[in-house]
Amino acid sequence: MEPNKQENWKIKLHEVIYEADTPSGKLFDILLLIFILLSIILVMLESVVSIDEKYHQLLYVGEWVVTILFSIEYILRIISVKKPFKYIFSSLGIIDFLSTIPMYLSFIFVGSQALVTLRALRLLRVFRILKLARYLGASNHLKASLVASRVKIMVFLFAVMITSIIFGTIMYLVEGEANGFDNIPKSVYWCVVTLTTVGFGDIAPQTPLGQFITTFIMILGYGIIAVPTGIVSAEYVRTSQKEDAENKGLKNKGYDPYKNPDDNITIQLNSQHCSNCFVSDHRDNSEYCYNCGNELHPKKS
Amino acid sequence: MEPNKQENWKIKLHEVIYEADTPSGKLFDILLLIFILLSIILVMLESVVSIDEKYHQLLYVGEWVVTILFSIEYILRIISVKKPFKYIFSSLGIIDFLSTIPMYLSFIFVGSQALVTLRALRLLRVFRILKLARYLGASNHLKASLVASRVKIMVFLFAVMITSIIFGTIMYLVEGEANGFDNIPKSVYWCVVTLTTVGFGDIAPQTPLGQFITTFIMILGYGIIAVPTGIVSAEYVRTSQKEDAENKGLKNKGYDPYKNPDDNITIQLNSQHCSNCFVSDHRDNSEYCYNCGNELHPKKS
Amino acid sequence: MEPNKQENWKIKLHEVIYEADTPSGKLFDILLLIFILLSIILVMLESVVSIDEKYHQLLYVGEWVVTILFSIEYILRIISVKKPFKYIFSSLGIIDFLSTIPMYLSFIFVGSQALVTLRALRLLRVFRILKLARYLGASNHLKASLVASRVKIMVFLFAVMITSIIFGTIMYLVEGEANGFDNIPKSVYWCVVTLTTVGFGDIAPQTPLGQFITTFIMILGYGIIAVPTGIVSAEYVRTSQKEDAENKGLKNKGYDPYKNPDDNITIQLNSQHCSNCFVSDHRDNSEYCYNCGNELHPKKS
Amino acid sequence: MEPNKQENWKIKLHEVIYEADTPSGKLFDILLLIFILLSIILVMLESVVSIDEKYHQLLYVGEWVVTILFSIEYILRIISVKKPFKYIFSSLGIIDFLSTIPMYLSFIFVGSQALVTLRALRLLRVFRILKLARYLGASNHLKASLVASRVKIMVFLFAVMITSIIFGTIMYLVEGEANGFDNIPKSVYWCVVTLTTVGFGDIAPQTPLGQFITTFIMILGYGIIAVPTGIVSAEYVRTSQKEDAENKGLKNKGYDPYKNPDDNITIQLNSQHCSNCFVSDHRDNSEYCYNCGNELHPKKS
Repeated sequence: MEPNKQENWKIKLHEVIYEADTPSGKLFDILLLIFILLSIILVMLESVVSIDEKYHQLLYVGEWVVTILFSIEYILRIISVKKPFKYIFSSLGIIDFLSTIPMYLSFIFVGSQALVTLRALRLLRVFRILKLARYLGASNHLKASLVASRVKIMVFLFAVMITSIIFGTIMYLVEGEANGFDNIPKSVYWCVVTLTTVGFGDIAPQTPLGQFITTFIMILGYGIIAVPTGIVSAEYVRTSQKEDAENKGLKNKGYDPYKNPDDNITIQLNSQHCSNCFVSDHRDNSEYCYNCGNELHPKKS
Repeated sequence: MEPNKQENWKIKLHEVIYEADTPSGKLFDILLLIFILLSIILVMLESVVSIDEKYHQLLYVGEWVVTILFSIEYILRIISVKKPFKYIFSSLGIIDFLSTIPMYLSFIFVGSQALVTLRALRLLRVFRILKLARYLGASNHLKASLVASRVKIMVFLFAVMITSIIFGTIMYLVEGEANGFDNIPKSVYWCVVTLTTVGFGDIAPQTPLGQFITTFIMILGYGIIAVPTGIVSAEYVRTSQKEDAENKGLKNKGYDPYKNPDDNITIQLNSQHCSNCFVSDHRDNSEYCYNCGNELHPKKS
Repeated sequence: MEPNKQENWKIKLHEVIYEADTPSGKLFDILLLIFILLSIILVMLESVVSIDEKYHQLLYVGEWVVTILFSIEYILRIISVKKPFKYIFSSLGIIDFLSTIPMYLSFIFVGSQALVTLRALRLLRVFRILKLARYLGASNHLKASLVASRVKIMVFLFAVMITSIIFGTIMYLVEGEANGFDNIPKSVYWCVVTLTTVGFGDIAPQTPLGQFITTFIMILGYGIIAVPTGIVSAEYVRTSQKEDAENKGLKNKGYDPYKNPDDNITIQLNSQHCSNCFVSDHRDNSEYCYNCGNELHPKKS
Repeated sequence: MEPNKQENWKIKLHEVIYEADTPSGKLFDILLLIFILLSIILVMLESVVSIDEKYHQLLYVGEWVVTILFSIEYILRIISVKKPFKYIFSSLGIIDFLSTIPMYLSFIFVGSQALVTLRALRLLRVFRILKLARYLGASNHLKASLVASRVKIMVFLFAVMITSIIFGTIMYLVEGEANGFDNIPKSVYWCVVTLTTVGFGDIAPQTPLGQFITTFIMILGYGIIAVPTGIVSAEYVRTSQKEDAENKGLKNKGYDPYKNPDDNITIQLNSQHCSNCFVSDHRDNSEYCYNCGNELHPKKS
């Protein structure tokens, strides 16, 4: 199947926007990273009254520049993929969309503060560019150990919540409104502040009995902090030992069908995204997507 | 022994209330969970003055609804078991009882604030429904590592207490009443606040010497926080490695008499509770309680 | 060598005071524990102005009772050992002496506050009675892992101190006297408070630049807290694995000359102290001290 | 090549200044350590207004004494090495230079506060004397585990920053200027303070919704603190196990060409620095630098 001229143009665009292996793709990613960080700094500076008063016009223009560039990028992203709706409703697509619209929405919802949060979401876009998934992929241990200890951590957090509610109620009765423990929800909030060793000190026990109970809560929190750490490190040790053992096992067998002989650590992957199904991390020189069979048009090296 | 009609009714009731395998048992558990959470939220909202002033009547009615439902449930629980006294004096039975009575007690002890704590105890009932024991059973490692390091943690906490009392006394002498270190107990409380890295800041050293000693205490606390974490993670690693080794050993032998051949991880257990001795976690399709020999009336599947 | 009558009396006394295996020895230890805790509570209560005003006379009498009992005990301890000077200048002997003298010294140094600290040292005596050494002996891992990571922890703490001094100086220049960073020592103190995540908040950065540097310090502290914990747990894992391996090795050889055949975990030790050299932890039924060869007079069982 | 007289003098000087094996070398190091600590204490005391007012003259003289001594030492260091420029532009050389000049610069930049920081840098010189590199070399595990988990820790810190910016923005909207969350940068600062469990309390949420979100942030921070600790300890366990295995492997082979037979732990190194290339940690009795082949003139033992 020979792609026609228009399709050829789309493929080029796809390469620039979605891949980071070609010089133009790299340049695009670096420019995008700069604009994302710029847009975050704009949001932050705008919230500082003294700066906003002085440079309001400049910040406003900057915000529009970012918005327009993001709009163009969003449209190009839709054009350059085969199944635009799949992109639009993917999590990355939704983040891209929400990052773009705040300024347009500001015409409809005049002066809405909530749009600031929407603009802060732009930060999530950084993940796309830094190809953090690759790095995180390198730290499979971390993910595996978090998943393995998920249930335990949940049971644990649940226990923390119950402890907080019971001790929060007790402290509310002991200290009372006069000492800042106005009601049970606030008292529970204080208890979490104490158990997690944050200790703001905006509310603090004043009565001797309250201080005695607090001593108990803190030592409890001291012991509790050991549990999630212990779980994560133990799971982490376990996962990495298992992997070490597996690597050893494969070596002993002397044959590893998934291993590139030129690279005794990992298969060479590139940053291509399939223009049909958005799957990335294809093997270098792949001609077809491993997930949907779509032609990949690898760059000639 | 053919159970007569009345007993049959009791068995049905037992199934609904104590088990979670049948649709009616599941529905009962979900409803109970909702009412427990509702009762906790009621207790919390009641303590917020602004909410209590507006909706006092509503909260009062809600509290009575919860109390009456809990009362009915408590009576049904007593009726549906063979040995009611065993249930009444079991830890679960006592929590159920204490969760039910606060509103009745409010007639006797008018305006007693302590009843709020009693009502907060209802939260402990959540454990019953979530069958957390099952999850915790899945994390035997956690329990085993906590038990294995119990003595060490106790010795450790004892050392923390002694450190706090000695440094608390020194800080009381150095800083004195003028800087908030009113007396030794308060000074010891401050020392625990510092050692555990909570640091409220309601009391803080003001003299240069006091700040110097505090620097020492904090760095000590910094080193100390490493110890319980280290103990728990090491024990956890040890326990999980031992289990891994045992699993391997059994596999090597190729025979595991306690393993259900249809399930290569655990024996299939269900949520039945024996109506005679309250033991749970019977094997599926068990006809008799493994603990007391009482007939179990498993559901036909 | 038949001990004469006087020596026999001494041996009995030694048994009561230094050992915990006989009923009278146990009773002595329990009584001593009660008096030590009582004396600590007395010191604490005396520092609370409102309590001291009301019960001054009672506390004063209580203090004298404790002092006289400790004096008698101290004299008996000296009498009942063969080499009194060895006891007097042992660390336990010095603590016993310092715990006894504060009230006598109060005649010489009238109103000296420092004596309170001396009285707080009595708490250290608790270790003697609880025979914590035994428990700690059970946690040899802990000690071994702390010793093994001693140098690393010291290098680490030294690095923390240098970081604190450098950042403390920077924060003093950035924030200045106006925002509570009065001078470099106070600024260094604040830096340790922040790095250890204690965060009292009595001093806090007010300028944007100061808050930016603080953010950096906190994230640094966040990473730093991982290091001592990691060191201790890793050493702990290593030590316990080594011990496991050694135990396995002995079992494989099928012979363990130091193992009591009736007890497959430890040799049965008792709480006897040799009256000549103060060594404890003799094997049950030992006739002579393993350290100095002195006769032990074991109780007939 | 017989060194002539002048060179002989240089070699002696090099031995005294750069090495710590001879009595004169040790004395030099101890004196230098004292002067460095003295200079740090001078910087600190000068910043305390009450002390500076009283003893300004004394501190000023002390500062000049330290400066002159450091100047002499710096010149001697340049003279006694073969390639002075290599020393001057090495990191140690730059620190030595910056430690020396503040007083001279004070004539040019009169009253410049920034010079205080420059003087605080003197503390870094301590590392040179304590030969900490040696100790740190002993804790290769630590370094290896930090390097191994570098990428993971960076990804992790990046995630912390993103979490802080998003929650900081939300808290700014929820709490607003009235409750101390003046602008987004300050709000992000507060969020890092909370996530790292520092919790100064200079800014604290006042609205119920803000306190609810804070509870969530704190529990998140509680879970997050487990991750870097887990990573470091697991890597540390892994590295130390690998090394144990390697040591074992070498023993099994029964031959270790790099092991001194008289010392079954490490090769005997001394504190000599090559006067040509500054490499240290030469093997005892080495005649030539292992790095550049320069003659070392070992002391006769």
